[in-house]
Amino acid sequence: MSKIEQRLTDLGLTLPDPIQVPPGMVLPFSWVRVRGNRIYASGHIALNQDGSVAEPLGKVGAGITQEQGYEAARLTCLAMLGSLNRELGDLDRITSWLRVFGMVNTAPEFNLYPLVINGFSDLVVEVFGADIGDHARSAVGLAGLPFGTPVEIEAELEISD
Amino acid sequence: MSKIEQRLTDLGLTLPDPIQVPPGMVLPFSWVRVRGNRIYASGHIALNQDGSVAEPLGKVGAGITQEQGYEAARLTCLAMLGSLNRELGDLDRITSWLRVFGMVNTAPEFNLYPLVINGFSDLVVEVFGADIGDHARSAVGLAGLPFGTPVEIEAELEISD
Amino acid sequence: MSKIEQRLTDLGLTLPDPIQVPPGMVLPFSWVRVRGNRIYASGHIALNQDGSVAEPLGKVGAGITQEQGYEAARLTCLAMLGSLNRELGDLDRITSWLRVFGMVNTAPEFNLYPLVINGFSDLVVEVFGADIGDHARSAVGLAGLPFGTPVEIEAELEISD
Repeated sequence: MSKIEQRLTDLGLTLPDPIQVPPGMVLPFSWVRVRGNRIYASGHIALNQDGSVAEPLGKVGAGITQEQGYEAARLTCLAMLGSLNRELGDLDRITSWLRVFGMVNTAPEFNLYPLVINGFSDLVVEVFGADIGDHARSAVGLAGLPFGTPVEIEAELEISD
Repeated sequence: MSKIEQRLTDLGLTLPDPIQVPPGMVLPFSWVRVRGNRIYASGHIALNQDGSVAEPLGKVGAGITQEQGYEAARLTCLAMLGSLNRELGDLDRITSWLRVFGMVNTAPEFNLYPLVINGFSDLVVEVFGADIGDHARSAVGLAGLPFGTPVEIEAELEISD
Repeated sequence: MSKIEQRLTDLGLTLPDPIQVPPGMVLPFSWVRVRGNRIYASGHIALNQDGSVAEPLGKVGAGITQEQGYEAARLTCLAMLGSLNRELGDLDRITSWLRVFGMVNTAPEFNLYPLVINGFSDLVVEVFGADIGDHARSAVGLAGLPFGTPVEIEAELEISD
């Protein structure tokens, strides 16, 4: 068993199935694009184990609490790890996280986006450790996200060639 | 004639002139920045053939329909290809699309951003094919875009050194 | 004295201290992530010399003028240069700016985001010159930014290995 896989097991975490895209929607791109030693991860959202879009949907600060936003960001990390694992075969190939762009579906008065996106960053560091898991990050408020999901996150990573 | 140029001709497509920046506005950056084997494409918008900003302007879901948003995303792709062609001299030098970040100027209730940005992705894959044209992508809702344009898209690509 | 340090001194500019993160907020990421010849700079905001969050806070077009937004973008550049200097030890190691993503906390009616983010781009070109300082850029309107800051900007740069 690979090191990261073991770590996920120790933490009691399982990665969800690929996203179930709503009927009639075609998405003509890849969830993960690998080229040389760079990985570009598409904007991911929180999923249930079966790949269906996780609830609750809505805007953080109006219907969705900050804590629910944190949990959505954590589930978003698991969904991205699922995509990465399917593409790479082995998450131990990841040598460095580089950039995390965290987007929060925001109500007008809410602005503690960093505390929401911490749900993603905390899990990355917990699973990969501080050296590999460290990253540059932005955490900002969007006017809307697909399907009304509260959080969407894209990332760039490095793998061994 | 280069392969991609031929493909554009076969599809009946022509690339627009460089953007006509409104009088009094200075933009102190480049539409395309090349360094080593990486290309960074600035946020592009839909243009008419003469480089003027394409209409209609406004927010998707309020005044602009999803179909008009799709068409704006398609025109945005042509504008970016125009910038890339002027910089590279030959679009055949592009060896891989990597990352597409699609931004939709959104009305409060609209959230089908992926179906709007498909106007860009569909054309990339149509022109470059699935291998070179595949990319990671996010498609999200912005509170506003320059000049009130309905769509803005930035990208990262790879070229042969 | 390094060349860029000299240039900053000639312009009468000093770089602010590291951001004073509000009490109780933990930010589990780095302001600058370096890997190989790439630098990823996290989303930075305008700071006072002591690293406290600069005022005024609010939305450009409602409470914050376009000119105040420009000044915030300029201060954001100085904050990012401070982070880069602490990480690299010497800003002369920067061989190229690549990508600048400029985010404006926007009121509903405002859309001249490029003229706000010019505060950042103008200073980059002024300090680094047109060759090193040139960059690809997007300048767009966000529904909200952390702490209600009017401007946040992230970037990617190249250094000598």
